[in-house]
Amino acid sequence: MSIAKDVEVLKGIPLFAKIDPAKLKLLAFTSEYLQFVAGDELCGQGDPGDAAYIILSGEADVLVDTPRGRLKVATLHRNDIIGEIAILCDVPRTATVVAASELETLRISKENFFQLVTQFPQIGIEVMAELASRLHDTTQALTQAKGKLNELEKGPNGEP
Amino acid sequence: MSIAKDVEVLKGIPLFAKIDPAKLKLLAFTSEYLQFVAGDELCGQGDPGDAAYIILSGEADVLVDTPRGRLKVATLHRNDIIGEIAILCDVPRTATVVAASELETLRISKENFFQLVTQFPQIGIEVMAELASRLHDTTQALTQAKGKLNELEKGPNGEP
Repeated sequence: MSIAKDVEVLKGIPLFAKIDPAKLKLLAFTSEYLQFVAGDELCGQGDPGDAAYIILSGEADVLVDTPRGRLKVATLHRNDIIGEIAILCDVPRTATVVAASELETLRISKENFFQLVTQFPQIGIEVMAELASRLHDTTQALTQAKGKLNELEKGPNGEP
Repeated sequence: MSIAKDVEVLKGIPLFAKIDPAKLKLLAFTSEYLQFVAGDELCGQGDPGDAAYIILSGEADVLVDTPRGRLKVATLHRNDIIGEIAILCDVPRTATVVAASELETLRISKENFFQLVTQFPQIGIEVMAELASRLHDTTQALTQAKGKLNELEKGPNGEP
């Protein structure tokens, strides 16, 4: 894409809604536009985390390897961020992400991601809100799953 | 505590390790030192989220109300942050936090929290890393719980 079109696209992403469009040019210069087709792997569980992706259009599945095979743990949509955990925690990729449809993304390298949130703290706040919201959802799902587990392990008559 | 002692305490917290100690005075002025005894409630599930707490010493239990009563989902220790999810997502408190021992905390109001991460993006990065790390742990626990659930629901002979 051209820089002008990149900036147009970035302006439409809630994460960057509060950023001066003139400054978005910098981000457009330092990020990379990448397209995928259904089945393409964006990153593999265990890989080093070198970049984050923002979904511009399409869907992606988040898959985790377990002893009983791959488990789909989430589906990501437009404006969702992929891969920021491995960047932030400095750990290998915690999941495999595969395009579930034609997928347009913006790839931001680890180095540029840190520059970005340092230069535009508002983006950092949006990223924090996104992480906090996911943590909220995951914690609730975990609480529900633990509750069900307790029930099943007790047996049908409430006995251990 | 005196401002000088507050700054000493703040310097010892990893979250603020990279911040100019002279600037920590500002934080010391805008934060509040609060002590609790075992059993005291710092915040209740469903309350509005008006502040975050940093644990300076002691432990706190994170409790979630379920149809079968309260479930302990985590224990927080020195340097852990409490209550930043409700601040960041603008949702009611997602859990009840109760002091599990004598507890020393630093209370930062919602308004000051946002000022802080805007003025010191490095603190924002540390908060992101903390959230990402917790999301990582919770996602792994959820994957394990779901795996166990699948197994139990299948029955002992792998039949539904």
